[in-house]
Amino acid sequence: MMNKPVISLTTDFGTADYDAGVLTGVIWSIAPQANIAVLTHDVTPFNILEGAVILSRCTPFFPEGSIHIAVVDPGVGTERRGLAARLGKQIFVGPDNGLCTLMVEQAHKENLPVEFYALENTEYWLPYVTSVFHGRDIFAPVAAHLAAGIPLNKVGSPVVDPVLLELPVPIQTASGWRGTILHVDHFGNLTTNLTAGHLSGKVNYVVTIQGTAITGLTTTYGSAKPGELLTLLDDSDCLEIAVSQGSAEKRLQARVGTEFELVFQE
Amino acid sequence: MMNKPVISLTTDFGTADYDAGVLTGVIWSIAPQANIAVLTHDVTPFNILEGAVILSRCTPFFPEGSIHIAVVDPGVGTERRGLAARLGKQIFVGPDNGLCTLMVEQAHKENLPVEFYALENTEYWLPYVTSVFHGRDIFAPVAAHLAAGIPLNKVGSPVVDPVLLELPVPIQTASGWRGTILHVDHFGNLTTNLTAGHLSGKVNYVVTIQGTAITGLTTTYGSAKPGELLTLLDDSDCLEIAVSQGSAEKRLQARVGTEFELVFQE
Amino acid sequence: MMNKPVISLTTDFGTADYDAGVLTGVIWSIAPQANIAVLTHDVTPFNILEGAVILSRCTPFFPEGSIHIAVVDPGVGTERRGLAARLGKQIFVGPDNGLCTLMVEQAHKENLPVEFYALENTEYWLPYVTSVFHGRDIFAPVAAHLAAGIPLNKVGSPVVDPVLLELPVPIQTASGWRGTILHVDHFGNLTTNLTAGHLSGKVNYVVTIQGTAITGLTTTYGSAKPGELLTLLDDSDCLEIAVSQGSAEKRLQARVGTEFELVFQE
Repeated sequence: MMNKPVISLTTDFGTADYDAGVLTGVIWSIAPQANIAVLTHDVTPFNILEGAVILSRCTPFFPEGSIHIAVVDPGVGTERRGLAARLGKQIFVGPDNGLCTLMVEQAHKENLPVEFYALENTEYWLPYVTSVFHGRDIFAPVAAHLAAGIPLNKVGSPVVDPVLLELPVPIQTASGWRGTILHVDHFGNLTTNLTAGHLSGKVNYVVTIQGTAITGLTTTYGSAKPGELLTLLDDSDCLEIAVSQGSAEKRLQARVGTEFELVFQE
Repeated sequence: MMNKPVISLTTDFGTADYDAGVLTGVIWSIAPQANIAVLTHDVTPFNILEGAVILSRCTPFFPEGSIHIAVVDPGVGTERRGLAARLGKQIFVGPDNGLCTLMVEQAHKENLPVEFYALENTEYWLPYVTSVFHGRDIFAPVAAHLAAGIPLNKVGSPVVDPVLLELPVPIQTASGWRGTILHVDHFGNLTTNLTAGHLSGKVNYVVTIQGTAITGLTTTYGSAKPGELLTLLDDSDCLEIAVSQGSAEKRLQARVGTEFELVFQE
Repeated sequence: MMNKPVISLTTDFGTADYDAGVLTGVIWSIAPQANIAVLTHDVTPFNILEGAVILSRCTPFFPEGSIHIAVVDPGVGTERRGLAARLGKQIFVGPDNGLCTLMVEQAHKENLPVEFYALENTEYWLPYVTSVFHGRDIFAPVAAHLAAGIPLNKVGSPVVDPVLLELPVPIQTASGWRGTILHVDHFGNLTTNLTAGHLSGKVNYVVTIQGTAITGLTTTYGSAKPGELLTLLDDSDCLEIAVSQGSAEKRLQARVGTEFELVFQE
């Protein structure tokens, strides 16, 4: 028996209203055999980068061929395209506004193929499409038809110029790196754009952020005292700035886009 | 192979405690083959109208025969009845307090049959029923038994006088309509009780709400400037008052029950 | 056909980030046939007792053999062990920090067997284990392998000294009991450590908490006037202090650990 197809949902709809719940109904009406996973419905409204980070952190852990619906879509109803894309081992369905940027980067890093198609074939949409809810009317039904077995290239014509976000890249300095906060998680931990590779195995350094200095690489949250600032490599090997059992976001008044300096010590 | 039965959940339990999660255990103990969808657990506590709106927006998109458990139930443990009802193509299970009002209206509009049964047959309840948690002890097990195949009329005797909410109806004025806000969504968009039918295709009008005037019908959020007030037809063809990439609820200090005037222009 | 295995999730990850969603991907990559239930991702961060209460309220209602992943884990990455345990009819997988305390108590009360194993066999972990996210790297894959059929004792060696929480026990006084608030639910209802057994069927008593007296046992929320303080037996036969259609937590400024006196009346 083939495994059941998996569809995941990432939106900024929140969970207090009907728009998250209705997606499941649309999907199971077309693909009753699909397993549906909620990644989150709580992306900060209209925050495309946050949605892109969450997708990039979750999708590599899903079975090959899983279909990921993402809807953070301030441009709904305008001329922006809808996309379905094979990005390495995963499938993306959502607006063409950069949401899939980090999934594309990951596929490139692993030398896996990427291919994009515009959502044009209305046969795979709901019969009545509104201008305000493409998540329900276009993205969910297209994903469900893919789960039910239609080939990816049936959804529309190939796209060669998908919209991709320009992300801040680390800047090498005389004695280290200048980095940027890319993401703030639930606990107030700060994810940076520096990775294990930028540290080259060095653990002696000072990170200065918002006027506060933090010394050296820690290995676990639990090995610092509660309330202590620390830096460590997170679960995706990115440098993270955290407070043990507390919130670095609040302590440092930092947010996405905040810059910091890392200076290696002798 | 028959499709797996679908059960959906709509409650005001929140997601921070055990009462939402336990429902799934009860259902899978009786109907292990059921697919379970969360519509929302975040209805404003005790807000029956809000639950009714969410059900009416989601259930039409579910497969025929889906079973929708709804628990917004300030009267739990008193004499209020429990109901199971066939409302058009969908099944409702929950308290008899008006939660199913809009599902009933939809079935009537489509000339589909409605039938109501009181939950009386304790054979389909949990063995030990508390007076405080009928969601777990009565509604979830009854829904699961329905998913497992018992006929609807086995749950109890027919009911001819279900409790239905009295909803504010639009009032025609000399030059337009007086309407009411029925629902406020996650983004702060205001759903009104006016529909496309009340506009008769006209797009030139002024809506006055909380002392603020908004001119004309817009087609998409994205076609207005960020921060701009607008009115548009929402994904259910209801007139909606919104702020592009913002919250009309906050801007206008409006809420469910707030009235407004719509005056057609030449 | 055997029923599909059930895996449940209880964490303090919140739902706004990637860490809740990624667990489902890990599980379905190993056990695609598993049914996954979210109990909650909204345990108060690092609050082990709250997680333990939620598990004890939900797990008895799940099918026998369900596997419950629990991650409230301030000690992640330190020397604290991971556990898989058969606790009566249910399976627990999570950190060895007391999260399973109340499940163990329930199994003991019903004279059902308990057995604990340390998570040691890396064959059932993800290939690359970080020091910061054992939920994804160890607990979810171990649970999925159990769902896929490996025997419990394959995960590692037996443990005889699991960490268990010391919970406040009711103290008998000359005329009644001194009790403690164990849990505060979504509605602000206060769960106490007194049960039906401590009341011995008596309904005439005065509860004094935070300087406020509440008289007698009520049977349902709905039988009190909105806003009225009351005590009743909750859905697990624990004495609960509540406000009809309101929040006892806010009214009484009470929280977990707040003590109260119950004095029986003639």
